Amino acid sequence: MGLKLELLLFVILFVSSCELRICSGDGKLRFGKNGEFKILQVADMHFADGKKTPCQDVLPEQMKACSDLNTTAFIRRMIRAEKPDFIVFTGDNIYGSDATNPAASMNAAFAPAISSKIPWAAVLGNHDQESTLLNREGVMKYITGMNHTVSKLNPTRFHTIDGYGNYNLEVHGSEGSRFVNKSVLNLYFLDSGDYSTVPDIPGYGWIKPSQQYWFQQTSAKLQKAYKAKPVPQKNPAPGLAYFHIPLPEYANFDSSNFTGVRQEGISSASINSGFFTTLVEAGDVKAVFTGHDHLNDFCGELTGIHLCYAGGFGYHAYGLAGWSRRTRVVVASLEKTPKGGWGAVKSIKTWKRLDDRHLTTIDSQVIWKKGSSGKISFPFCSRRKCNWGCLKVWVR
Amino acid sequence: MGLKLELLLFVILFVSSCELRICSGDGKLRFGKNGEFKILQVADMHFADGKKTPCQDVLPEQMKACSDLNTTAFIRRMIRAEKPDFIVFTGDNIYGSDATNPAASMNAAFAPAISSKIPWAAVLGNHDQESTLLNREGVMKYITGMNHTVSKLNPTRFHTIDGYGNYNLEVHGSEGSRFVNKSVLNLYFLDSGDYSTVPDIPGYGWIKPSQQYWFQQTSAKLQKAYKAKPVPQKNPAPGLAYFHIPLPEYANFDSSNFTGVRQEGISSASINSGFFTTLVEAGDVKAVFTGHDHLNDFCGELTGIHLCYAGGFGYHAYGLAGWSRRTRVVVASLEKTPKGGWGAVKSIKTWKRLDDRHLTTIDSQVIWKKGSSGKISFPFCSRRKCNWGCLKVWVR
Repeated sequence: MGLKLELLLFVILFVSSCELRICSGDGKLRFGKNGEFKILQVADMHFADGKKTPCQDVLPEQMKACSDLNTTAFIRRMIRAEKPDFIVFTGDNIYGSDATNPAASMNAAFAPAISSKIPWAAVLGNHDQESTLLNREGVMKYITGMNHTVSKLNPTRFHTIDGYGNYNLEVHGSEGSRFVNKSVLNLYFLDSGDYSTVPDIPGYGWIKPSQQYWFQQTSAKLQKAYKAKPVPQKNPAPGLAYFHIPLPEYANFDSSNFTGVRQEGISSASINSGFFTTLVEAGDVKAVFTGHDHLNDFCGELTGIHLCYAGGFGYHAYGLAGWSRRTRVVVASLEKTPKGGWGAVKSIKTWKRLDDRHLTTIDSQVIWKKGSSGKISFPFCSRRKCNWGCLKVWVR
Repeated sequence: MGLKLELLLFVILFVSSCELRICSGDGKLRFGKNGEFKILQVADMHFADGKKTPCQDVLPEQMKACSDLNTTAFIRRMIRAEKPDFIVFTGDNIYGSDATNPAASMNAAFAPAISSKIPWAAVLGNHDQESTLLNREGVMKYITGMNHTVSKLNPTRFHTIDGYGNYNLEVHGSEGSRFVNKSVLNLYFLDSGDYSTVPDIPGYGWIKPSQQYWFQQTSAKLQKAYKAKPVPQKNPAPGLAYFHIPLPEYANFDSSNFTGVRQEGISSASINSGFFTTLVEAGDVKAVFTGHDHLNDFCGELTGIHLCYAGGFGYHAYGLAGWSRRTRVVVASLEKTPKGGWGAVKSIKTWKRLDDRHLTTIDSQVIWKKGSSGKISFPFCSRRKCNWGCLKVWVR
């Protein structure tokens, strides 16, 4: 009887875990039986030495008891509240220059994800390698060896690529659906670098041609597979891109065309390396998610692609006292087929949650719907030149 | 006696041709015995059907006798006047939609270069393929089969690349010098496309990630070879890049920081694909030469790279009546070694010549000198963010 009860409990737990997040039977990321795939983005934890590491920019009354452990507690609360299917850490996961032992800092920083057994991925920021013990390759290699992570060092079939932590993940359709063996949501992760190494270009790093070429080829391959049998699709599966440093195009927004706030400048690279153009041309990525600027948390659409910040998450990172640390949630939802099963992705929504008493939800917005397409412009060409109409301010 | 005289004349002619341009004994582009390598750039010939094709935008008194043959005459005069070592045609070589037979138009357009026996190269513009008979691949393939051209279709050791006419050429040191087997000047040619095929991005084409990746790898290989034995060099050999459509960064100039004129907008692609960043990072290209905007002929420096127009050359192309058609000349000069031989490249100069009675020379300027380096900026970093000082307007 006791054994039977245990078996029953196991079955119940297994099924409920399948429904909530991922049927990990085949080791693939997959939409749950509720037709959703939910991603929690954690940006800029800046984790150092745990309890010994004080907070920055919190209210005077919060300061005394505040440390890296507040960052840990926030992740744990978020996992309980949102029950995500996937967690992505978008860089500056540890604050290398304050970390006595970067490996220990990573163990502590990612512990809530690991203990939750939820699959998780990470990319590098500009601070992760700032200890004297692990360089960027070392940090990323360490991450790929941690439990429950699906992070990868770099593509294996691409001979040279800049940076560490360029990879993609496929999220397959729901078990029992016609999309069970197809990737219906594609996740791209890139290393946006740390600092420029070119004397003439001051500032932060950028996504290089080798990485863009890899992205372009990967996107093309995924699109071809999605349009092929079985269940051939007309348009590509939606994609989401995660990296640390915002693109220069983030500077094209103001409060009139985004949801959220911009409380500091856009700390992109000081030059444009063209990745936004590459994304638009590829056509499948519907949203980009970065961190880096802790006081910006907006999300706005440019040429069919949403450019979104998560807002600062970590307590040992600059912030604004009284302005809650925050995190971004994205949920992709499948459409119902006429027969009542699950189909392809129907829509993608996002919102943020604040680290306050109620984990308040703010700024919910739809960032993509199946069937929505870009605006087509037809040029008027004379024998002299083509007049392309009123080009937007992001022309250059 | 007659035979001896002929032989003597042949030797004199051969030696003088070596001095003036290229010792073609080994089929390589090479600096002459005068220590110079001179390049004539012909932009936007817009050649169609020769004598039957009328001119555009010339003075009323010029109109009657004016045709494509004026374009031909201008090239012939320039070849006689400048005796270039190399001629490069930077696209819109023919005006496809008016060309009854694009092959015949190309035969006529390039005839002056072919009959001069000077090595020549071409890239494509946005009009070359506008006939119904030859697409872009067809046009570029046709060019590569013409006499005395060193144009290439695409790199053979690179599996996929966008466009047609992406290649590089090495210009070797002077015969008898220590640089006889080294490329001391590198020429890059790229296909900047015609029109965007992305509905959300109106306007002209751009240089894609695959092309940038090829450029980056080629530049790295050439730099490695230049720094290796024999005669290992500390800095890369200077490079020059030729293509049709200007980069968005051309819009960062005004009359305060360029030589020449800007009489119309910069018709770059409507988005930035990052090739300028890639050029700056590679570090060897010292100048970019484009056409496309016939009424702009300026040349200005941005972050150590000169961005130059040639100005409109062809008569069956829009222009400005009374404002002479023009062309750009570039000359690279070798340094003298202590022993009196020729060394590496010492400086690169440019000027333009007008199609007036005297082929007037204007706007001479030095665009590179050996030993000149970029401005190094040191960031001031606090715990919050790095302050990179006053970034230039080309930040985004």
